Amino acid sequence: MKINVMSDILKANDLLAQGIRKELEGRGIVSWNIMGSPGSGKTLILEHLIPLLPPHVKSAVVEGDLATSKDAERIAKTGVQSMQINTNGACHLDAAMLRSALSGINFDGISILFIENVGNLVCPSGFDLGENGRIIVLSVTEGDDKPEKYPSMFRTADLVLLNKIDLQKQTDFNIGRFSEGMKKINPDAKILKVSAVNETGFAQLVQWVVDRLP
Amino acid sequence: MKINVMSDILKANDLLAQGIRKELEGRGIVSWNIMGSPGSGKTLILEHLIPLLPPHVKSAVVEGDLATSKDAERIAKTGVQSMQINTNGACHLDAAMLRSALSGINFDGISILFIENVGNLVCPSGFDLGENGRIIVLSVTEGDDKPEKYPSMFRTADLVLLNKIDLQKQTDFNIGRFSEGMKKINPDAKILKVSAVNETGFAQLVQWVVDRLP
Repeated sequence: MKINVMSDILKANDLLAQGIRKELEGRGIVSWNIMGSPGSGKTLILEHLIPLLPPHVKSAVVEGDLATSKDAERIAKTGVQSMQINTNGACHLDAAMLRSALSGINFDGISILFIENVGNLVCPSGFDLGENGRIIVLSVTEGDDKPEKYPSMFRTADLVLLNKIDLQKQTDFNIGRFSEGMKKINPDAKILKVSAVNETGFAQLVQWVVDRLP
Repeated sequence: MKINVMSDILKANDLLAQGIRKELEGRGIVSWNIMGSPGSGKTLILEHLIPLLPPHVKSAVVEGDLATSKDAERIAKTGVQSMQINTNGACHLDAAMLRSALSGINFDGISILFIENVGNLVCPSGFDLGENGRIIVLSVTEGDDKPEKYPSMFRTADLVLLNKIDLQKQTDFNIGRFSEGMKKINPDAKILKVSAVNETGFAQLVQWVVDRLP
């Protein structure tokens, strides 16, 4: 009985997500679902990435948080449209929440939609939002054992941003151990070492994003 | 309909949790539910705390993870009994999982049970495990805005361990902003600044734990 209810919820979500994907693709927009732990640096990466994109590449951002509009306010300062979703306690975004948020965005001239999910390395992975791909942010301060300990999340990544690489020497994060874990869970994911505070690796990140424009 | 199902699940969990609490208290055991983001340092704190407890204070540990037994293996090296729960994708422990794990522990002479929950700053807060209190671990690398952004978690804390304090100067973590957030969400929680790698603040942490022995 419990399984049926969960299955119905997921089915309804998938139908909504398919509609979102079709609509965005029809408008020539590529969309990225950005996921990671609280404080892994998702918002700061967007704050630094957006101004580095070529001038003709316009983006919009949807921010997901349990509470507050702090993240959408930070993103708005970069000059792009940003919408905040408050999940009021829910541990992930779903397609219905995104559907509502999208109705507040003017998509004229927009070619990228960044969706920053709730900070959580578990739940967001189970919910398709209609995105074209997934970017997982892991900071080196979280430890190199995370791909194996949170396989459902890392299995779905197109790109893993290994953030706070400037702090690596202050931690025991071992790139070899991390890469071994990724090979077991998701050998196809691209891995980029970045630091949002000093924009290490951001030239490669910009290139990765630009290469995937529609 | 959905709400009824969720309410029934929580009711069943609460009944089981009450049974666990009664049983542990009857055995003279105090239990702590330890929660925080992936990589906040929950396991490393236990690895350093357990050997610093007075010799007559024996503890046991239950570790919750989506996958792997890495954490229970780390804890076992301190010489205490440790049990690993794999949630197989679930984002939090519940009382039924803990009930199963407890059947594998010999409680003779044990006075503290540490339960390390799944790394997640959202879901574990909603599930009573029968614990006597809650310890939230937040690392300074996660940012000072977390109490307001994850209120359901911080509202339930008896103790907040502000971990990785040795890295504070490499971050923009502002203790004043963090304390303001905590005052809004949970003014009664005790806050201790700690670093598991060099045991900063561990004398106070040991004292806090010892003061709360049955």
